[in-house]
Amino acid sequence: MIKPRLFTPGPTDVPPEVLVEMARPIFHHRTDRFKKMFAGVNDGLKKLLMTGNDVLTLAGSGTAGMEAAIACAVGRGGKVLVANGGKFGDRWVKVARVYGLDVDEVALEWGTALQPETVRERLAGGGYAAVVTCHSETSTATACDLKAIGEVVADTDAILIADCITSAGALPLRTDDWHVDIVGAGSQKAFMLPPGLAFVAVSEKAWKRIDAVDAPGFYLDLKAYRKSAAKDDTPYTPPVSLLRGLAVALETIHAIGIETVWARTALLAKATRAAAEALGLKLLSRQPSDSVTGILYPAGVDDGFRKRLQSKYGCSVAGGQEDLKGKLFRISHMGFVDPLDTIGLIAAVEYTLADLGADVQTGAGVAAAVEVLADWC
Amino acid sequence: MIKPRLFTPGPTDVPPEVLVEMARPIFHHRTDRFKKMFAGVNDGLKKLLMTGNDVLTLAGSGTAGMEAAIACAVGRGGKVLVANGGKFGDRWVKVARVYGLDVDEVALEWGTALQPETVRERLAGGGYAAVVTCHSETSTATACDLKAIGEVVADTDAILIADCITSAGALPLRTDDWHVDIVGAGSQKAFMLPPGLAFVAVSEKAWKRIDAVDAPGFYLDLKAYRKSAAKDDTPYTPPVSLLRGLAVALETIHAIGIETVWARTALLAKATRAAAEALGLKLLSRQPSDSVTGILYPAGVDDGFRKRLQSKYGCSVAGGQEDLKGKLFRISHMGFVDPLDTIGLIAAVEYTLADLGADVQTGAGVAAAVEVLADWC
Repeated sequence: MIKPRLFTPGPTDVPPEVLVEMARPIFHHRTDRFKKMFAGVNDGLKKLLMTGNDVLTLAGSGTAGMEAAIACAVGRGGKVLVANGGKFGDRWVKVARVYGLDVDEVALEWGTALQPETVRERLAGGGYAAVVTCHSETSTATACDLKAIGEVVADTDAILIADCITSAGALPLRTDDWHVDIVGAGSQKAFMLPPGLAFVAVSEKAWKRIDAVDAPGFYLDLKAYRKSAAKDDTPYTPPVSLLRGLAVALETIHAIGIETVWARTALLAKATRAAAEALGLKLLSRQPSDSVTGILYPAGVDDGFRKRLQSKYGCSVAGGQEDLKGKLFRISHMGFVDPLDTIGLIAAVEYTLADLGADVQTGAGVAAAVEVLADWC
Repeated sequence: MIKPRLFTPGPTDVPPEVLVEMARPIFHHRTDRFKKMFAGVNDGLKKLLMTGNDVLTLAGSGTAGMEAAIACAVGRGGKVLVANGGKFGDRWVKVARVYGLDVDEVALEWGTALQPETVRERLAGGGYAAVVTCHSETSTATACDLKAIGEVVADTDAILIADCITSAGALPLRTDDWHVDIVGAGSQKAFMLPPGLAFVAVSEKAWKRIDAVDAPGFYLDLKAYRKSAAKDDTPYTPPVSLLRGLAVALETIHAIGIETVWARTALLAKATRAAAEALGLKLLSRQPSDSVTGILYPAGVDDGFRKRLQSKYGCSVAGGQEDLKGKLFRISHMGFVDPLDTIGLIAAVEYTLADLGADVQTGAGVAAAVEVLADWC
């Protein structure tokens, strides 16, 4: 018996209660029953993102939500500062260019994050409509100081658009207090759901920009979602079963308390980093995210590691993307994962590295993790 | 005990086998396991649409797929003929206008369909990049002769983009034989799935146009989906659980045989029309679709009918949209619905009309339907 366990930074494991809810018979979306459920979901999303702003739900991947934000808030030729420190930063640069925006790209070494001082310096030039950054850049397992960046941007006419796809519900994120004008998130990360929903929280400052721009598309026009959301409705047919699951997932998260979830996520990340250090393994990131940890392979180990970890021990982790292919593996700490799962995974990582002949002391990582996680118990 | 039954033209009832499949634990999408499943799904979609063309799957509502087709295949200023005979035709006009296309709108009386001769006459002017039409216009329960329109368009440089959201898997649709260059479909209709997936089948002729246009967006760029699909992959995180359900639904459909499914759908529609006639009720459509039947309320009955049908008999049907609000109800014949369901629904319709004091002879509709459906048994 090999029990499958997902430690990939999306999709993450879905709790059985959520799976069962999604298996319940479908019902129609133009009904009071749907409106009631959708209103509850919207309240839960606001609470999770700590915002009084509209939170819009789109049927699509997280990319759809981020594209809607960038394309609706900045008109053709508008100036945007975009942080590019990994695969997703690179994607937002591409999206901004497709829409003909004037892109001022901050090319970051992979594993480093956008610095607030950089934002201050660039914005001093004036004329920026928006700053786009990943809060947590999944590809490099790196998080920026979004609060500090928010403070800088709040003093300007620009809005802050943050890719929070692997931060919302995992890292501390206080949307309103931190002046994050647009938060983009996706269902398959800390929300403990299958992929298929994108969430977009929009501030008053951002709506002013959006209202001044002719939406370049139809399906991704945020104004249509705002208009429907005001009536607890959606402009196009919503994924009803995913929304049912979301209602249960949000209930679970809020029963625990979002700040407790953040603390758990941070502790799992801390334990994983301690284990890596004890095993003599190096992290890629110089500003590691607490939602995902990227560990470089030791000499002599390649991506066959992940195959073996999966086939022999049932644990799925992610590999490197683009230039990092075959150079690291990434472990998620988001959602439905607890200290015991993490200790088990670290043991499996040790076994697998030893199987492959790497020079690691089996048990050292587990011991280090167990020590950190003692705080939890 | 009131058993809930969905007769709405999307979402339609989902078979328990599909619900259970979607409740299975999630797995990661960048794996051989996913690729194998996705390849199987793509084969099943091609077989269902009777095409050798690429069939692309997007995370989104059906609208997302249709928008991707229109926006990717026709560049700004390109001339398109768009049939507008209902809520969805009107939507495709809006989408075409958002992208700055030169829209030649065929304004149809609601309840009538685009005629092949009209297409021939308009296209004779030359210079058209595409013709956009609903195969089945859900809002008016009206179907066009897509085969005849395909023959007309095939003789020109234009491509045919068909909204087959309530026709694919329900009405006869032979994509390749009928020269339908782009078919747009959605998961929550005859595919017997919850909403959340859009399907887009694209011919070689259409790819030539798409390759010559700079995609105006990113998430809805069909070229990205083609590139990934060639490797049994998706460009953005796909809704894995919906795709698992789709695999089971397609297996079910192909075990029955798609032509048998078409025949069943047509027979249910015929029985419903016969029942309406026997009850002295009028259809809205002059060219009724076999996937959905739109019946006008008799004198003295308003949309309270639907509420009562649902609360007292458990049957959900759709109402009218836009100008038709409160004037008709619509019954779906798509997907997981059989003759016995339909007979039961007609009885409930009769009871409800009688409850509301309408002048109908209870039992007459059921008798007429039973007679038509005898062919099936």
